[in-house]
Amino acid sequence: MTKNSDRLLIDCLEVTKPTRERFQEWRDGGLDCVHVTLSIWENARETLSTIGKWNRIFANNSDLIALAHNAEDIESIAASGRTAVIFGCQNTSLFEDDIDLVEIFCELGVRIVQLTYNVQNNIGSGCWEEDDHGISQFFGRNVIQEMNRHGVLIDISHCGLTTSFDAAELSERSIAITHANPSEFVGFDVELNKRNKPTDLIKLVVEKGGVIGLSVYPKIMRGGSNSTLDNFCDMVEWTVDKFGINAVGFGTDYYTGYSEESIVWWRAGRWARESPLKIPNKFSPWPDWFQTPADFTKLLEALSDRSFTDQDIELIAGGNWFRLFRESFVPLVQSNQ
Amino acid sequence: MTKNSDRLLIDCLEVTKPTRERFQEWRDGGLDCVHVTLSIWENARETLSTIGKWNRIFANNSDLIALAHNAEDIESIAASGRTAVIFGCQNTSLFEDDIDLVEIFCELGVRIVQLTYNVQNNIGSGCWEEDDHGISQFFGRNVIQEMNRHGVLIDISHCGLTTSFDAAELSERSIAITHANPSEFVGFDVELNKRNKPTDLIKLVVEKGGVIGLSVYPKIMRGGSNSTLDNFCDMVEWTVDKFGINAVGFGTDYYTGYSEESIVWWRAGRWARESPLKIPNKFSPWPDWFQTPADFTKLLEALSDRSFTDQDIELIAGGNWFRLFRESFVPLVQSNQ
Repeated sequence: MTKNSDRLLIDCLEVTKPTRERFQEWRDGGLDCVHVTLSIWENARETLSTIGKWNRIFANNSDLIALAHNAEDIESIAASGRTAVIFGCQNTSLFEDDIDLVEIFCELGVRIVQLTYNVQNNIGSGCWEEDDHGISQFFGRNVIQEMNRHGVLIDISHCGLTTSFDAAELSERSIAITHANPSEFVGFDVELNKRNKPTDLIKLVVEKGGVIGLSVYPKIMRGGSNSTLDNFCDMVEWTVDKFGINAVGFGTDYYTGYSEESIVWWRAGRWARESPLKIPNKFSPWPDWFQTPADFTKLLEALSDRSFTDQDIELIAGGNWFRLFRESFVPLVQSNQ
Repeated sequence: MTKNSDRLLIDCLEVTKPTRERFQEWRDGGLDCVHVTLSIWENARETLSTIGKWNRIFANNSDLIALAHNAEDIESIAASGRTAVIFGCQNTSLFEDDIDLVEIFCELGVRIVQLTYNVQNNIGSGCWEEDDHGISQFFGRNVIQEMNRHGVLIDISHCGLTTSFDAAELSERSIAITHANPSEFVGFDVELNKRNKPTDLIKLVVEKGGVIGLSVYPKIMRGGSNSTLDNFCDMVEWTVDKFGINAVGFGTDYYTGYSEESIVWWRAGRWARESPLKIPNKFSPWPDWFQTPADFTKLLEALSDRSFTDQDIELIAGGNWFRLFRESFVPLVQSNQ
């Protein structure tokens, strides 16, 4: 179980239900690091329980995975032939209304947190809200400052547009789009087009040192469920051409192992009794070229047939995320506080 | 301990710390009904504990007070010579993100809930936010519908302007301003002027059957801490002239018994480490003419020297609130659901 290559392969978002079978697929796909989702609507107490479950999972699968708190952990876990897990949340629900919980969850390993999930919370708006008015003046700004201080990377994948721009501007540190595609490339006819990001936003995020993780989730890809591996490689090329080789990584949004009830939970949380989306509460099949993360091998092979150099592939595969993680997962110098 | 008059006296907001001494003051002031505050930032679990504490308080003070779930309860408690307590919350924090908690807290007696407290939450914005963008499209609208269904009266006293207008328009039922003053009368030089309500908003609330509860809290009164009983009576007259005799009641916002630490809790909750207000975290002294709710007797005496008829006084003292409570504290007919 030693690592064969110096290249790191990072998937900067999977929501998959954590089981040993999945971790084996990570190893089969050569994944050195995966950013997982602990919570979508879960509050502080519920997220503690999820972390508790992960602690058992780490104990029982220590030959395949381990928790990484920072870049050094990722390197050493990868060097041991295992996959480093980064804890993340797709919402700030775990912080509830408590500024102090940022530090506490950071201590427990939560290093990436999305500010909003589809709808409005006390911090900002999600991509579904027709009126997104940005980061709230009090708690919103406080949370960004606090995440910056402790080294929790801000994710805007499911945030609304104004909230995303505000976050990029208010954050003193680089922010991330861990799992969304460029809407200019994908077009607006995909089912969840509001999730994808416009060119000017990606540009701003990238200028400030951020990275966008491209997703294989059919509902946000060009061609939707008919999207091909070629389409995906086209998107990688287009995104690199548009935003530079340091801007792009993977964030597949891969998940499996859930019942369809989970879809209603993700879409409606507890704030509605049914999903407000006018699409069925069904799982989309994953593309035939990406049935599981084990197919990262195919994906990287296909990319290597494109115009990229080895060094380009290295950056896309994980170098860019690793650079951002190294910069992000450390507290700010405390001297001026 | 029987009631002397048919007139009901209702104070539609006190935040006072509940002790027997206070309940005695209610009796001394002739109060038939007081709307109390269970929570400001407290979540579901914490609010349950507060209700638990009140259950003990009711058991130990059953000669002075009792919980009212509806208008009939208020009448019978008042007829027994005791003060009816209406449970309310100054924020939707007790609902957290859960639409089902509206019904549950309603069953436990919570009949008045303010949508936001000063800052933004998942439902709307508070009066401190420079950008108030109204009721959120998903959870916000769902909560209003759910409160309407179960008969929980919507309060907008600390809400922002757009959120207040939205609430008045989106709610199928009358809404309330339980404790704020008309800004046109008070002027804009008082410390917490953002709390007071503009004429067009009060007009809309009143047109839809709502009531405004006038407050003796010095920071939102004309003249601030120098405000006199005459000023207060002038305000009552002005408000009745402007909005009609069915529009006006009392909502003193009276509190006592707290340490100054509580002020920081009210102002900053858990979402900041200090209050963002640029005024000291000190209690304002209550006016000499309203040291405790026992002084309602003075207040009513002063009002009776004004241009009001006995019937007018009856409406202002509690008739308007009672009419609104009677209409509000019942579920909507379930037939069309």
